[in-house]
Amino acid sequence: MQSLQEKASEWSGVPSNDAFAIDTTNLYQSLGLQTFINLSTNFYNRVYDDQEEWFRSIFANSVKEDAIQNQYEFFVQRMGGPPLYSQRKGHPALIGRHRPFPVTHQAAERWLHHMQQALDSTRNIDADSKIKMMNFFRHTAFFLVAGNEMKNQTQGIPCKHGVSKSAAV
Amino acid sequence: MQSLQEKASEWSGVPSNDAFAIDTTNLYQSLGLQTFINLSTNFYNRVYDDQEEWFRSIFANSVKEDAIQNQYEFFVQRMGGPPLYSQRKGHPALIGRHRPFPVTHQAAERWLHHMQQALDSTRNIDADSKIKMMNFFRHTAFFLVAGNEMKNQTQGIPCKHGVSKSAAV
Repeated sequence: MQSLQEKASEWSGVPSNDAFAIDTTNLYQSLGLQTFINLSTNFYNRVYDDQEEWFRSIFANSVKEDAIQNQYEFFVQRMGGPPLYSQRKGHPALIGRHRPFPVTHQAAERWLHHMQQALDSTRNIDADSKIKMMNFFRHTAFFLVAGNEMKNQTQGIPCKHGVSKSAAV
Repeated sequence: MQSLQEKASEWSGVPSNDAFAIDTTNLYQSLGLQTFINLSTNFYNRVYDDQEEWFRSIFANSVKEDAIQNQYEFFVQRMGGPPLYSQRKGHPALIGRHRPFPVTHQAAERWLHHMQQALDSTRNIDADSKIKMMNFFRHTAFFLVAGNEMKNQTQGIPCKHGVSKSAAV
């Protein structure tokens, strides 16, 4: 059975080495906190204004300012900065925390479309950092699609009308 | 509704500041890779020999050597060392990856019992590091209990006999 990592690489087209090339440098040190805040603000401004209602509606129950803070704190922590996210919210637990959302292939592509635009229109992000970040985002988006598909597997989840069968991952 | 972090703190008795005090120092630099390998080997030797069959059986479908490597690579990555885990397996995704396992309060306590013994019997771990690590482990164990309980909530999981109702987290 394909692992989450293998699915993420296949579906995103990004090998895991490229996805985690963010760890070969310290993007937080080179870009600084304000750039991450600007990027996430730019990204969520686009998301909350998306003309595609099916995508915008995924975020309808979240407050934009919270979404921005959650995102840039995670990025800062993951890209070499202080562990702002864990101090406030605990482990990133990316799959668990995305559980309420329909992270489909289509949603991943739409998320990435906005992120590419946000990266391109945020000041002070050099071309090399942009490539590293986009590879990380692309791989991670499809990692979460793979995580989302686990929800549809039967794994001992008690259902309303009985208990579904357990399956190893 | 209580967040994962709040539940983890309440159930573990460890405030999140204490849990993430591992980030106030670099435990990987002070302890070194071999100590982490020894700790996880020590821990899983105890787990796979546990006289409590209910706990031992949770690991029955995992190869001990794999469990050891997964664990020490995650610890190394999370405690200031190179991102060994992500390079090989991707995001830790703690809740998602524990999804197949019954992470109950009782299982968390048993896991922590073995980890305390492993910490106490692994050479070269000073008292302060031991306290920091145990606070992190205790908080994380109950964070995963909170994550496990999400499985029992109805969240649009398609069930064999119908689709359960969606609920916001």
